[in-house]
Amino acid sequence: MARLVRFLARDGKVYYGDAILPKGVTNIAQTKKAKVITGDIFGKHEVTENVADVRLLLAPLAPEDVKTVRCLGLNYALHAKEYKPATALAGPTDRIPVPLMAQESLGLDYECELVAIIGKTCTDVSESEALDYVLGYAIGNDVSHRDWQIQRGGGQWSMGKGFDGWAPYGPGIVSSKVIKDPHSLKISTRLNGKTVQESNTGDMIFNIKQTIAFLSKGHTLQPGDLIWTGTPSGVGMGRKPQLWMKDGDVVEVELEGVGVCTNKVEFAKDSAKL
Amino acid sequence: MARLVRFLARDGKVYYGDAILPKGVTNIAQTKKAKVITGDIFGKHEVTENVADVRLLLAPLAPEDVKTVRCLGLNYALHAKEYKPATALAGPTDRIPVPLMAQESLGLDYECELVAIIGKTCTDVSESEALDYVLGYAIGNDVSHRDWQIQRGGGQWSMGKGFDGWAPYGPGIVSSKVIKDPHSLKISTRLNGKTVQESNTGDMIFNIKQTIAFLSKGHTLQPGDLIWTGTPSGVGMGRKPQLWMKDGDVVEVELEGVGVCTNKVEFAKDSAKL
Repeated sequence: MARLVRFLARDGKVYYGDAILPKGVTNIAQTKKAKVITGDIFGKHEVTENVADVRLLLAPLAPEDVKTVRCLGLNYALHAKEYKPATALAGPTDRIPVPLMAQESLGLDYECELVAIIGKTCTDVSESEALDYVLGYAIGNDVSHRDWQIQRGGGQWSMGKGFDGWAPYGPGIVSSKVIKDPHSLKISTRLNGKTVQESNTGDMIFNIKQTIAFLSKGHTLQPGDLIWTGTPSGVGMGRKPQLWMKDGDVVEVELEGVGVCTNKVEFAKDSAKL
Repeated sequence: MARLVRFLARDGKVYYGDAILPKGVTNIAQTKKAKVITGDIFGKHEVTENVADVRLLLAPLAPEDVKTVRCLGLNYALHAKEYKPATALAGPTDRIPVPLMAQESLGLDYECELVAIIGKTCTDVSESEALDYVLGYAIGNDVSHRDWQIQRGGGQWSMGKGFDGWAPYGPGIVSSKVIKDPHSLKISTRLNGKTVQESNTGDMIFNIKQTIAFLSKGHTLQPGDLIWTGTPSGVGMGRKPQLWMKDGDVVEVELEGVGVCTNKVEFAKDSAKL
């Protein structure tokens, strides 16, 4: 497969597929049709000639196909490793739900990130072989609440990045056979149409080969692991004045050759059940 | 089921089972026989009358049944939340493999922890209802490398707790119907037979009800989530002089009513493939 998508089809069923893009189009978000894939996307599978109409693109991996979600903090500036619960993952057009507890203080921020999806099991892989274990690449938004992440997070609970639905990604996974060099791709964020992050994956301090080699030291990486590789400058926290997302905002993250994730911020109105 | 175990049977197959303990024995590690369980341990299942001989107890949940692994840093002293990759989980008698990179500096430490296993999906659960969502309890050792966790971890990569096999737990999961009050259990660690941690789960600063209520705020907890609830005082880092585990050490963690996990530290001799 070249561009893996998971989608709701006109027949009301969910399929994996290989996106069929109109000539000249590279944004997978514009996919209208896809060849249905059968079998195990990490193992034996077949890209069939069965072409389905795409009604809605979903998060590229089914929940049961996701293993560990690893994140680098701010790879383009400094590097730290975190994990996210898979329940934070969401699709390329899903709303970003903001619970009341995350509305109490300022700090709702965006982070465009290249997401590398592991396709084959590996441990202690070398830098030169690292990309052989990558199924492909997607673009993700590592939505973060700086107050929960830092002030409430330091020595306290780190809750600022794992809320349900705070890791939309997609719109599909472009095969590492198509993107042979993931270190020369434009990456950007637009908030309500205005560009707020604009960089190139070549500006990462630790490139993807180094990251995978490092993360795999003594740690087995599995098919379905997602590696979120960190975000460039321009996040709301670092701006003067600071810029926080608010109810109804539309945030787009884009990666060259992959496409755009477009998500609307939705503040919950109901109180939690507590 | 009262005491869930997963085990290799004499027939060479792996089963879930309900442990049959000799009269007066509460340590699940001594299980010699178990009633085989069929079906979905989180859903419809049956404890059959088929009694199997237990050859080896395994990590209580099959890898495919584990979802998110959440850890509190040091609940008995201060509280921070982390995630672990499920690849860190191991069984109650497995070796703890220490790769070369974690042999380069001092800091290999133990942490006995009560592990609560979520049995039903929940979000925004109240403290009063929190334990209704718990399948049961196990004892785990949150093996940690303080140099990788702190010195190499601060602003650097946090690698000190997620190595393959550094989260042995078991020896089984005692049902929340059997342990109705998880806040009055003795918990301890022995290193080479000498007691180094000795406390009671009643000494947690945040009890398990509060922890689950808090962790579930805006975060969906799923069947198969493990919550490692933090460790009491006595870890090697906090002792004078500091006490680090070394090759060949035998570390035991014990929880009253659940049993003992006994794991031997094994320093790898081969260099990584890098």
